[in-house]
Amino acid sequence: MLVEKYRNMLSGKSVIRQLSEFATARGQEIGYENVFDYSLGNPSVPVPREFTDTMIRMLREEPPAKLHGYSPSLGITEVRKTIAASLERRFGLPYRTEHIFMASGAAGALAHAFRLVTEPGDEILTFAPFFPEYHPYVDLTGAVLKVVPPQTDTFQINFEAFEEMLTEKVTAVLINTPNNPSGVVYSTETITKLTDILKKRSEEYGHIIYLISDEPYREIVFEGVDNPCVSAFYDNTIMCYSFSKSLSLPGERIGYVAINPACKDAETMVNMCGQISRGIGHNCPPSIIQQAVAEVIDRTADLSVYETNMNILYKELIDLGFTCVKPGGTFYIFPKALEEDSVAFCRKALDYDLVLVPADSFGAPGFFRMAYCIDTEKVERSLVALRRFVTECYGGK
Amino acid sequence: MLVEKYRNMLSGKSVIRQLSEFATARGQEIGYENVFDYSLGNPSVPVPREFTDTMIRMLREEPPAKLHGYSPSLGITEVRKTIAASLERRFGLPYRTEHIFMASGAAGALAHAFRLVTEPGDEILTFAPFFPEYHPYVDLTGAVLKVVPPQTDTFQINFEAFEEMLTEKVTAVLINTPNNPSGVVYSTETITKLTDILKKRSEEYGHIIYLISDEPYREIVFEGVDNPCVSAFYDNTIMCYSFSKSLSLPGERIGYVAINPACKDAETMVNMCGQISRGIGHNCPPSIIQQAVAEVIDRTADLSVYETNMNILYKELIDLGFTCVKPGGTFYIFPKALEEDSVAFCRKALDYDLVLVPADSFGAPGFFRMAYCIDTEKVERSLVALRRFVTECYGGK
Repeated sequence: MLVEKYRNMLSGKSVIRQLSEFATARGQEIGYENVFDYSLGNPSVPVPREFTDTMIRMLREEPPAKLHGYSPSLGITEVRKTIAASLERRFGLPYRTEHIFMASGAAGALAHAFRLVTEPGDEILTFAPFFPEYHPYVDLTGAVLKVVPPQTDTFQINFEAFEEMLTEKVTAVLINTPNNPSGVVYSTETITKLTDILKKRSEEYGHIIYLISDEPYREIVFEGVDNPCVSAFYDNTIMCYSFSKSLSLPGERIGYVAINPACKDAETMVNMCGQISRGIGHNCPPSIIQQAVAEVIDRTADLSVYETNMNILYKELIDLGFTCVKPGGTFYIFPKALEEDSVAFCRKALDYDLVLVPADSFGAPGFFRMAYCIDTEKVERSLVALRRFVTECYGGK
Repeated sequence: MLVEKYRNMLSGKSVIRQLSEFATARGQEIGYENVFDYSLGNPSVPVPREFTDTMIRMLREEPPAKLHGYSPSLGITEVRKTIAASLERRFGLPYRTEHIFMASGAAGALAHAFRLVTEPGDEILTFAPFFPEYHPYVDLTGAVLKVVPPQTDTFQINFEAFEEMLTEKVTAVLINTPNNPSGVVYSTETITKLTDILKKRSEEYGHIIYLISDEPYREIVFEGVDNPCVSAFYDNTIMCYSFSKSLSLPGERIGYVAINPACKDAETMVNMCGQISRGIGHNCPPSIIQQAVAEVIDRTADLSVYETNMNILYKELIDLGFTCVKPGGTFYIFPKALEEDSVAFCRKALDYDLVLVPADSFGAPGFFRMAYCIDTEKVERSLVALRRFVTECYGGK
């Protein structure tokens, strides 16, 4: 008697993964360098040299028991302290060790955040377009994820729909800025308005509505774009961070939960994360990676290629007549397809070896996502294919 | 509104952790080398040199994107293949890549195993003495852990109690051999009898009763002791393994689930593990550690010190008049206390700077656990304290 809910999930295959598998298979036919694979958000730039050097030095010099021993259940104290100090330095909020819980990437951080503040049946609101994995992440806790429809002209927040959906059953609101898949960064105005509403409604309903801020793209922000620190706007913010994108090590599963020091019961919440871990088999991110990341805190991989790629693609897409909000960060761009059915659109693109992802599962049908975390040279070569595709299928310029 | 069940867990502090904190504090007073800390199961021997060398070589030579990139959701295919081949070579069962799911240590592996086969309200049986973390691991899934009382003369299985408790509500039986805390290895006779009962009852009840075999101590087995491969006795076995103890890297969170190739729906179960992961924020063990472990598969740290320590302690305990089953493996020994109240016994031992763990939470009140994963030199020095303690408090020889 296997558990049906998991067995049933096997039939629903992720579109992104199917496309990525297509790209791999096609790559074996014509050479992967000739497949313009915009499907996966896998960082393309290498981890910083300092990280690798630190790892090698630690492996050589540190006693193995210190390097590879059990981490305390909240994470290694010195690492948590280093992260808290960095957050304080950068964002001016008085984070301390006791506000930080080490987690296995953003997925691990979110798994703890959801369990901290939702009982089965409680609602979490998020905003389209959104990362489709939020559904299994939330649904399998027993809470209910509801998606506020997008404001498609800016991909900021559709406040009218939000205020309507923000009922008493909502215990948390989940945002992701800079955003996957739109690439948009929420403005100060957006965050101010959002948090004002949360304050008002928390008071009205007599319970805290927590703001869960999923920030894996925090360090990938383009020139001239303001990226406000969400926690600075709202006391009851649970920040979920991952080093996957900033340091280009998504496989090493390292991130954290940072509870706003001004949040009610902040320290208790961190301790509760340690209890949640026991129920989900999470026993801290890898010890050596925790220690290495702390040594290179505030460093990032060379993220400039993403902005270069964005500028090339954005210009070309606009030239070709696409409607597209200019990304403020991340390595995604999110144009409107040239026909209503973006699945059909993306299927046709495959004939040109362009692997684009239709945005139905992101909550924004009619749009598609391009993950441009690939070499600039390949982006440039893809423009020819893109132009041919648009001209031949849609009579574009 | 924080979730009460997690908040309430904060008041119930683990005895082991309290004792370990005592040991640390006392160590600051008198020097940690003078505290005979037998509280924690933290491996004391270093990781094998080959592991460290492999890590350094990979960091130097491998492309960072391969080394640190996202692992597929079931684990890195090559690593799974290496593990399957090792299991086949060692145990003669036809394991293949598709039977292996990479997990974050045994805790991660168990978190998946429990969710595979239990719906809320289903029962899992385990046998005292048992690892107390099984309680939060199981309870927080919504299933119910029931503990079969111990057979204290051998710490094999109390079959009479087991057969009575093995009702239709039981969907899985959880065993841990070599055992924490008793150090006992289940004999071929025990496992044969256990699995015969499971076969009979599965048929009788018309549903599979899965055998979840938690095997982190598999490689720590002493001379002359037979350690049968549990999976060879029962098709529907879910093996949960961790490299924490065998390679001395408990902080790196690396292990796996291996579904017996003869298990009904074995491949589906591995795929289901990938779905379970999405709900608990588990996204594979660290990529670099997966790859490094595969390179040193079948190697272990130098585990011989544990047997040396066991022999010294066992002889002394018997000399001092303790009742004690001789451990067949692990780095634990589990004698009967010299008074009925083992908590009182262990409290008195603290006056001699002996940190022993009373076994109430292990389901065997009246006994205590010593984790002898410490230097042999310290074990030897502890004997003086042990002798003084027994003589002064209990009039022993």
